[in-house]
Amino acid sequence: MELMYINTIWVVLAAAMVLFMEGGFSLLESGLVRTKNAVNVTMKIFVDLTIGALAFWLVGFGIMFGHDTFGLFGTSLFGSPEKIDLALKLPSAAYVLFQMGFAVACISIVSGAVAERMNFKAYILTAALICIVVYPISGHWIWNSDGWLAKLGMKDFAGSAAIHAVGGFAAFAMAKVLGPRKGRFNSDGSTNVFAPSNIPLASAGTFILWFGWFAFNAGSTLDASNTALATIALNTMLAGASGGTAALLITMKKFGKVDPSMTINGVLAGLVAITAGCAYVSEWSAIVIGITSGFIVIYATLFVDNLKVDDPVGAVAVHGFNGVFGTIAVGLFDTTHGLLTTGSFSLLGIQLLGAVVVIVWGLLGGTFMTKVCEKTVGLRATEREEEEGLDMSYHGIPAYNELERFTDLPTNLYDFEESTGVKVSPTVPPKERFNE
Amino acid sequence: MELMYINTIWVVLAAAMVLFMEGGFSLLESGLVRTKNAVNVTMKIFVDLTIGALAFWLVGFGIMFGHDTFGLFGTSLFGSPEKIDLALKLPSAAYVLFQMGFAVACISIVSGAVAERMNFKAYILTAALICIVVYPISGHWIWNSDGWLAKLGMKDFAGSAAIHAVGGFAAFAMAKVLGPRKGRFNSDGSTNVFAPSNIPLASAGTFILWFGWFAFNAGSTLDASNTALATIALNTMLAGASGGTAALLITMKKFGKVDPSMTINGVLAGLVAITAGCAYVSEWSAIVIGITSGFIVIYATLFVDNLKVDDPVGAVAVHGFNGVFGTIAVGLFDTTHGLLTTGSFSLLGIQLLGAVVVIVWGLLGGTFMTKVCEKTVGLRATEREEEEGLDMSYHGIPAYNELERFTDLPTNLYDFEESTGVKVSPTVPPKERFNE
Amino acid sequence: MELMYINTIWVVLAAAMVLFMEGGFSLLESGLVRTKNAVNVTMKIFVDLTIGALAFWLVGFGIMFGHDTFGLFGTSLFGSPEKIDLALKLPSAAYVLFQMGFAVACISIVSGAVAERMNFKAYILTAALICIVVYPISGHWIWNSDGWLAKLGMKDFAGSAAIHAVGGFAAFAMAKVLGPRKGRFNSDGSTNVFAPSNIPLASAGTFILWFGWFAFNAGSTLDASNTALATIALNTMLAGASGGTAALLITMKKFGKVDPSMTINGVLAGLVAITAGCAYVSEWSAIVIGITSGFIVIYATLFVDNLKVDDPVGAVAVHGFNGVFGTIAVGLFDTTHGLLTTGSFSLLGIQLLGAVVVIVWGLLGGTFMTKVCEKTVGLRATEREEEEGLDMSYHGIPAYNELERFTDLPTNLYDFEESTGVKVSPTVPPKERFNE
Repeated sequence: MELMYINTIWVVLAAAMVLFMEGGFSLLESGLVRTKNAVNVTMKIFVDLTIGALAFWLVGFGIMFGHDTFGLFGTSLFGSPEKIDLALKLPSAAYVLFQMGFAVACISIVSGAVAERMNFKAYILTAALICIVVYPISGHWIWNSDGWLAKLGMKDFAGSAAIHAVGGFAAFAMAKVLGPRKGRFNSDGSTNVFAPSNIPLASAGTFILWFGWFAFNAGSTLDASNTALATIALNTMLAGASGGTAALLITMKKFGKVDPSMTINGVLAGLVAITAGCAYVSEWSAIVIGITSGFIVIYATLFVDNLKVDDPVGAVAVHGFNGVFGTIAVGLFDTTHGLLTTGSFSLLGIQLLGAVVVIVWGLLGGTFMTKVCEKTVGLRATEREEEEGLDMSYHGIPAYNELERFTDLPTNLYDFEESTGVKVSPTVPPKERFNE
Repeated sequence: MELMYINTIWVVLAAAMVLFMEGGFSLLESGLVRTKNAVNVTMKIFVDLTIGALAFWLVGFGIMFGHDTFGLFGTSLFGSPEKIDLALKLPSAAYVLFQMGFAVACISIVSGAVAERMNFKAYILTAALICIVVYPISGHWIWNSDGWLAKLGMKDFAGSAAIHAVGGFAAFAMAKVLGPRKGRFNSDGSTNVFAPSNIPLASAGTFILWFGWFAFNAGSTLDASNTALATIALNTMLAGASGGTAALLITMKKFGKVDPSMTINGVLAGLVAITAGCAYVSEWSAIVIGITSGFIVIYATLFVDNLKVDDPVGAVAVHGFNGVFGTIAVGLFDTTHGLLTTGSFSLLGIQLLGAVVVIVWGLLGGTFMTKVCEKTVGLRATEREEEEGLDMSYHGIPAYNELERFTDLPTNLYDFEESTGVKVSPTVPPKERFNE
Repeated sequence: MELMYINTIWVVLAAAMVLFMEGGFSLLESGLVRTKNAVNVTMKIFVDLTIGALAFWLVGFGIMFGHDTFGLFGTSLFGSPEKIDLALKLPSAAYVLFQMGFAVACISIVSGAVAERMNFKAYILTAALICIVVYPISGHWIWNSDGWLAKLGMKDFAGSAAIHAVGGFAAFAMAKVLGPRKGRFNSDGSTNVFAPSNIPLASAGTFILWFGWFAFNAGSTLDASNTALATIALNTMLAGASGGTAALLITMKKFGKVDPSMTINGVLAGLVAITAGCAYVSEWSAIVIGITSGFIVIYATLFVDNLKVDDPVGAVAVHGFNGVFGTIAVGLFDTTHGLLTTGSFSLLGIQLLGAVVVIVWGLLGGTFMTKVCEKTVGLRATEREEEEGLDMSYHGIPAYNELERFTDLPTNLYDFEESTGVKVSPTVPPKERFNE
């Protein structure tokens, strides 16, 4: 019974930390995009944590963890996921909360890749669809004990495949269909770079994500009596540090500058890549996985660029490519069944199959969502909205109003709204004022 | 005995997270006010965490939890709150630390509503008075087992009434007496909007607050063997998500823009409203409470505006109105005694009484503090200080000095201070230089 | 066995919080330096958490905790620190992770003092050297049970001496050898002040550090059955609050302004000073230690200025001077052997010896590292790099690109890189573009 007490606080604290990673995504993405879209990416994170989280609680959880049908999806627990029957000594509410953190993380991966040009209503729809359909179905395959990939023996401890690869390749498909931001690629084949708007904030977001990742991986034990959770946390640290080290040194060598965005993405790449194997590999394997991920993230970024797919924050390279790599790495480095550690091919085969499945499913899911958006609310912001910036277009306010000391900007940025008939709150801009 | 160990780490970690919420308040408020006052609100949070925390430790704790006198206030434990005798298996130091986090939160609610025009010394005095008198007395009524409201059976699990409503209505009274910021309301009855200075920071503050709120509510069990803390955490998540969803969709519908400040305040409103009932209501009730709070926060903001009371960050609408709503909601949704769940009116009556009491007490307390300030250090900043901005007036430094790359601002912003006779440190501005 | 479970989650969570303090250092330092070097200090924190952490894991841990040689250093556990044999009921991986957080913190102390003019490659070398040699050797003396200071009975619970004083005086030596930033001191003996670039971010960093400090100190129990960890956490809070209160009131009195940087450093000073004694002193002693540290940090800052040593963030005053004070304070306030509490001089003598040792060792270590850098990669940035700002010089990107709305800055800040033969990623600047 006392194990129940320990598990409860462990998983509740871990869930809080995983949900706090949304603050990390918000800062990371608003720091990496252009100023005129920094509010918009932040508001998308709010969509994830509000509408997305509720959609998962209401429907997605049941699809993922409900009673299995043909190994493909669940069909129970809708509207009351707490009724799940756990084999663990853990209150089901703690389990549900932790899983909500995972679902929300999957959406937030997409939000970065589609930044700066997506219709906001389409994003709301996308967030709901990911949480209701896309993430839970492949999640069911991998993490429901009756899922078909789980039955084959696929190993994905904390979600390199189930969360990061699915989210990353859905992001790729959506970024591809959306098309690049205006002015991103030139007709002569060259590429324009849009400088990140705020490096200190992007860095702060990374530190929050790193903090939360300890809970993301070690919390996935869901069981404090599994003291291997300490090794999981250490592996997480070593892989993140190694990914960051590799990316930092590569950019110093290759470009003569230590590139902030790439170092950040190197850290995140290491964290993504160790997520599947953190419980299965040795410390030295974690370091090798981390270093490899640092190389992968840089060359995957260049590769995505060459495909003329515009991913403003590098989400596809970080989460998609390294999610896949991390999934495969389990087959290579698993201490009991890895190819490099034991000479056995069987696990690697299953992991490769799982990797192909999540790539295909992510691409299909992403494409599906773009089609739904196109047929309903419209997928892409108008040219004028994009030009003006999504912050003013969709939210009526710029991210930073720091210049008032130096300029003659009117302090009453929004006029009194006469047409609504009620006094306008200080923070609610009048309808249509800015994109009129 | 081992339960003691689990409880200790649970409450210490929860206390650390609750105290970290001050970082959330700091970012939220400095992001929502105008740039010229962004340092000042941050420094007020430092006052809360330093002078306020010490005042509560020294005196307030004894008023709140000391030996009861007539059900009204405590009269022991001054200067050594650790001597409290707990019925819990918990070191008293952990309990004291956790309660310090609560007291500090109560002040920080006020700091937002009085932002941008309050005399800094008056704020220091206010912080001390809240922690010594205002919060502990009503807190004694509600949370000391001998308090008169506690004896009536009032239910306020983590402080919708004791913290948020008291703080929110004290904030209302102080904002009312202080008067609006210059230029806020026009003589023709219309309202000028001052745009928030930094939306990404305000959002980051919200995510920190949300993170801390899991500890605020679930930590209030003070007991890890109460595994209902998992349900508490889940209810907290659901209500915050629902409040944010409602506010987001309402602003999209009503104003044609998804308003960042209102979405933020919708999330916070949901969190405030579930704070009293998180341990007493079902998941679906948490969602209903959250959605309702999203409506309340928007219309309460408009209502406060119409009263020509200037609350720069919406603290009254978020904490005051939703603290009251959350208190009443227990009477409606309590699983064992709620009106809507059981048809019984008795608990609702007590909750309504409690709600009225905290409104009146908050208003009285706020008014009392303004009078003390007026008779001593002066309540409001001078017109010139307000015009120049409180950052330069009280702290001698602007929030952001990011423009040096583009302008010819002198790098030696502060001259060598001759009058003090010692070399001036890099970070200490010379006396009276900027408001001379 | 169940204690093992509780300890595991306690130390893993504490380690995550300590490592998260790096996010605090990053925000604090990037907020306190000038804008043109804000990226650079952030990237140095990434160096700490990546290269530094790996260097400690690989080598430093063995020097510190490996098999003792003459009481001076360890000689085992290299490359597999998890093989350490603990007397605690704790997985060794949790211990290793926690200790990595401590080592990384020691480097980050240095990063602030050398900000704005150090060669980036020299910083990488320094980070590695601190983690491999400087910190582990004196750490061995104090914290390895066979270390010579440990055997004498020196008490340093969570590292006022082992981490803060060593780091602070190494920082002093390096700042001294590096020389001041250009324009910092005038030939007439006066001092120019460089205004901090971003106070809200510096404050946010402080709140993160404060949050992590609860884990830094209470986590150092490494044992949840030591319920004194609650008192440790409370003492940490009281000392931080007292240090901040003192600094805040002193600057208000002395300079007529409540100085943000000094208040921040007052809080940090209190936290540093209680770090050695948090487990050994009473609550009232913690307050006295905190108040004293608030005085020390201000006068130490002025003192360092007078020595014409340029410490952009006050790291020497905060960590060096208050680390030493905290070490000595144990000898004064220890409840069982302190001079002021028991009249006994013996512990004070040992603490004074320990304080002298860490000062000398820190100065020697710092000087040693500057010599290694000078002989290899070069210690200081070139005059041109410093003038332009280290952000553009070493990282090819400014911290903030918020002005695009107002200026005609080209959005394609980096041109297409022809010489590399591959398409340049959005975030990787072409080689040598900016310091050509």
